[in-house]
Amino acid sequence: MAPKGQKFELKTPKGTKDWEGKDMVIRDKIFSTITEVFKRHGAVTIDTPVFELKEILAGKYGEDSKLIYDLADQGGEICSLRYDLTVPFARWLAMNRDHQTIKRYHIAKVYRRDQPAMTKGRMREFYQCDFDIAGVYDPMLPDAEIVRITTEVFEGLGWNGRYTIKLNHRKVLDGIFEVCGVPAEKIRTISSAVDKLDKLPWAEVRKEMTEEKGLAEEAADKIGEYVVQKGQKDLLSKLQANETLMANASMKAGLADMELLFTYLEAFDALENVSFDLSLARGLDYYTGVIYEVVTEGSAPLATASTAAVAPPKPSKKSSSGKGRVDFDEDRSSDPSVGVGSVAAGGRYDNLVGMFSGKNQIPCVGISFGVDRIFSIIKAQMAADKNAEQPRNNETEVFVMAFGGKGFTGLVKERLAICTTLWEAGIKAEFLYKVKPKLPNQFNAAEKNGCPLCVVIGEDEMAQGKVKIKEMGLRDGHPEKEGVLVNLTDLVAEVRKRILRKSNLEELIQEAAGLKVVGGIRGEPELVKAPKSESVEVPEKISEAEKPAEGSLLSQEAIGAVPAS
Amino acid sequence: MAPKGQKFELKTPKGTKDWEGKDMVIRDKIFSTITEVFKRHGAVTIDTPVFELKEILAGKYGEDSKLIYDLADQGGEICSLRYDLTVPFARWLAMNRDHQTIKRYHIAKVYRRDQPAMTKGRMREFYQCDFDIAGVYDPMLPDAEIVRITTEVFEGLGWNGRYTIKLNHRKVLDGIFEVCGVPAEKIRTISSAVDKLDKLPWAEVRKEMTEEKGLAEEAADKIGEYVVQKGQKDLLSKLQANETLMANASMKAGLADMELLFTYLEAFDALENVSFDLSLARGLDYYTGVIYEVVTEGSAPLATASTAAVAPPKPSKKSSSGKGRVDFDEDRSSDPSVGVGSVAAGGRYDNLVGMFSGKNQIPCVGISFGVDRIFSIIKAQMAADKNAEQPRNNETEVFVMAFGGKGFTGLVKERLAICTTLWEAGIKAEFLYKVKPKLPNQFNAAEKNGCPLCVVIGEDEMAQGKVKIKEMGLRDGHPEKEGVLVNLTDLVAEVRKRILRKSNLEELIQEAAGLKVVGGIRGEPELVKAPKSESVEVPEKISEAEKPAEGSLLSQEAIGAVPAS
Repeated sequence: MAPKGQKFELKTPKGTKDWEGKDMVIRDKIFSTITEVFKRHGAVTIDTPVFELKEILAGKYGEDSKLIYDLADQGGEICSLRYDLTVPFARWLAMNRDHQTIKRYHIAKVYRRDQPAMTKGRMREFYQCDFDIAGVYDPMLPDAEIVRITTEVFEGLGWNGRYTIKLNHRKVLDGIFEVCGVPAEKIRTISSAVDKLDKLPWAEVRKEMTEEKGLAEEAADKIGEYVVQKGQKDLLSKLQANETLMANASMKAGLADMELLFTYLEAFDALENVSFDLSLARGLDYYTGVIYEVVTEGSAPLATASTAAVAPPKPSKKSSSGKGRVDFDEDRSSDPSVGVGSVAAGGRYDNLVGMFSGKNQIPCVGISFGVDRIFSIIKAQMAADKNAEQPRNNETEVFVMAFGGKGFTGLVKERLAICTTLWEAGIKAEFLYKVKPKLPNQFNAAEKNGCPLCVVIGEDEMAQGKVKIKEMGLRDGHPEKEGVLVNLTDLVAEVRKRILRKSNLEELIQEAAGLKVVGGIRGEPELVKAPKSESVEVPEKISEAEKPAEGSLLSQEAIGAVPAS
Repeated sequence: MAPKGQKFELKTPKGTKDWEGKDMVIRDKIFSTITEVFKRHGAVTIDTPVFELKEILAGKYGEDSKLIYDLADQGGEICSLRYDLTVPFARWLAMNRDHQTIKRYHIAKVYRRDQPAMTKGRMREFYQCDFDIAGVYDPMLPDAEIVRITTEVFEGLGWNGRYTIKLNHRKVLDGIFEVCGVPAEKIRTISSAVDKLDKLPWAEVRKEMTEEKGLAEEAADKIGEYVVQKGQKDLLSKLQANETLMANASMKAGLADMELLFTYLEAFDALENVSFDLSLARGLDYYTGVIYEVVTEGSAPLATASTAAVAPPKPSKKSSSGKGRVDFDEDRSSDPSVGVGSVAAGGRYDNLVGMFSGKNQIPCVGISFGVDRIFSIIKAQMAADKNAEQPRNNETEVFVMAFGGKGFTGLVKERLAICTTLWEAGIKAEFLYKVKPKLPNQFNAAEKNGCPLCVVIGEDEMAQGKVKIKEMGLRDGHPEKEGVLVNLTDLVAEVRKRILRKSNLEELIQEAAGLKVVGGIRGEPELVKAPKSESVEVPEKISEAEKPAEGSLLSQEAIGAVPAS
């Protein structure tokens, strides 16, 4: 592939990729769905630089700090690429004292020198979509709204309840550890072990606790009895009825929070997909209250997804210390012990801002959506569903073409002028960059991207001030199958009418089929831009040929996800 | 600012900044305007990684290569942050042989270790918005569409003709140099000298040519006669009438291209702001045909903007070789010899893809819009125009609040439930995170961000299944000044009706005032999302209080720009 004299391979750096074509369209649709939800809840966005002073990131990520990318020392400051969007947000809050409260979202790339598994959305450069609420407020109100937002995002993506929002609380977890007899200095490390329960069976985790981390076997077994429990308010009541647990101050405070949370989630109509899961621990040190994690089908590794693991999963290469660089760059996409992992995660972090600002603490709670993992799940399901409609690459509405017989000039200036008229009216239009194009080539170019309309100009028609509008893909026998001649002066109105009719058709088809598209939540009408005065007739019968090319991008059928447990 | 034990200052790296608040809203509006134009012309987007293998960037930027940021060597590949979006695009084209033609846009950050001038939009991390057309096509058709796109972008931004699109052609320039007797090996370096004419007076440039670069004085003086010339088709005719020039093959080919270009620009109605400017040279080596540069008021440095430079401008620190690191990080925002520079630039580069792919050349033409510079101009003008309406920080449409007398519970669950109803209907709503909030605090929170509507709930009204809707800022005496009671079951419809009425009012006010807002080009109706069945009455008289809070973000008056020369 390399030309003469070029000694390197043409590629992107390991763990990164170019995004293009339909992948890009799907990813953009995910972004716009998520952004719409964030704005619906009054959030504003902040943009921080891709790199930060190295000291800002130091001491925030525990042993994962080794995954941080550093910039070379070229003189001046020493910087690192951001590892997440949370630490830069905390740095911003600490720097900007006039903002004591804010709801902010941030959609941006983060960087981790981790071992990649590209097709599972585990990359070294990947997007995070973060929503955080900062400020001193009454307990659990922002925490509950985060869960509500999470349901709106996944419903908006068309997952229709096929996801589980796992909830737990650091104080509940710490309470369990204290009651089970874990010494104070071992609580964080035992918590890290519990965090692995979604990847490893209990026997492995227990072994790590007792053999690696020196916990008494009795304590480990007690923990084992708690961390298998999950439920909703039933679990809450059960824990509240346990006098030993309630005598623990941390547990009592945690459960009071959880009770409030459930009350608010009920009012928010956001209980359905929630699972209060005592095994949920989250690795990061900075969480201080409620923690969230969203999983769906594909989150778990294949090797442990069904029943109990038959063979013990291979130890992750990441955990084998330092050495073995040889395999570090290897892509683990086909390793069955690697799943997509959680598709969103977060929690409350009341002390992080104080790490920068000292006394001025600003409590925060937030969640981060892993767009690349969400994308890889949607992509895999679309590949599996042969009937899934493919999105279009571009949004061109009209292809402007010319035709003529002998002595055909190509009508290039006329085509440019007609495109100009359409562009001025805000209509998306293209033409072939050829002075004398052949008609079939022009139709091929229009069809290649599923362009719905053509405007065809000929010398005779132009002389009469007329052009032909042709809808692509009409059924045989349709009255407009061969196109309709319209006055040049009516062109914009006639084109708009047809674009609008197509949009309304797509809407009707979706309603009829009960399909759900990315881009709205249930109950929200999908509205079509149209001049107010224009009335549109929609034919009763919708022929196969008129079905939309892009509408039902992500139907319910295209999304497979596990029902809430 | 640093807490105890923290030895570093809280800040972003030099030459970078956090974007927030109204700045972010304005920047997003610029992005959406530009993206809309790009999509209108059928473009698709591609996303490449922020860093590339170091070898990909090597040998592409001449002496500016020293400004490239490298990543540290942490084992594995050696990478650099991208310097522009053009080289990654060429790398992508070379890697993806199934794409021989594409119209692509890319809006992303690029990185240059240059001396910053923050308030002038000269930063080390900044956005570029690139549009490029790749493929073998008939001459000058894509090149002309790039100019058309450029006019749509600046008209869409509301600059209303107050910008100049400078055009020139590498072959015309080379022709001039050849005719004036510049030796072949000096053509590129003499071209670089000409490129400085927007910053330096001719005498300085001439000196560089003769004293630094050893050009004969006679040749320099001949060049001087050409490079002051600018015009449109008049200049083209004048050059074509010059037999000496037309005898030069390069000049002849270049002028043939320019003639086609003018023909197509006429058909595209895109001639008005164009200036065929023989002094336009562009620094980058890879251009092979037409070159573009867009300037406006604020582009030129203050020191040389008016009349002739009284004092010779200070030599740029950048040009003083290598040493003097001390000042390199210093911000030059207040240096009068630094202007914003061009707000967009580009050209044809037919050989760049071949640098990666060898034989498989793909000719390209494109333009890059400097969003941060565009932003800094808009921002400065808004600051100068005290009447300019300020954009809102967020888009919240309804603030849900409660009030009550003695024994007031705060109605928290009811507020959450009403917010939920609104969110489900796609309406942007917020509430105060307080169990028992005071009414004035709730109104303050709503007013702070200019929220247009409130829903106020009280215990008595709730018992009757009713809530109050209150439009903010109605004039005294308005029939709804104190709000209107509506049935809870009609809440969504009643809220929608008022949101729609507000939007239509804003539209009317803009039409009446002949204002131009960011987000559309002339002629395109601004349409309001509304359920199809809903009819809306717009009151004839528009009171001061009902004027839109955000509509006329960037009025003509707010944009100062030089008329096309």
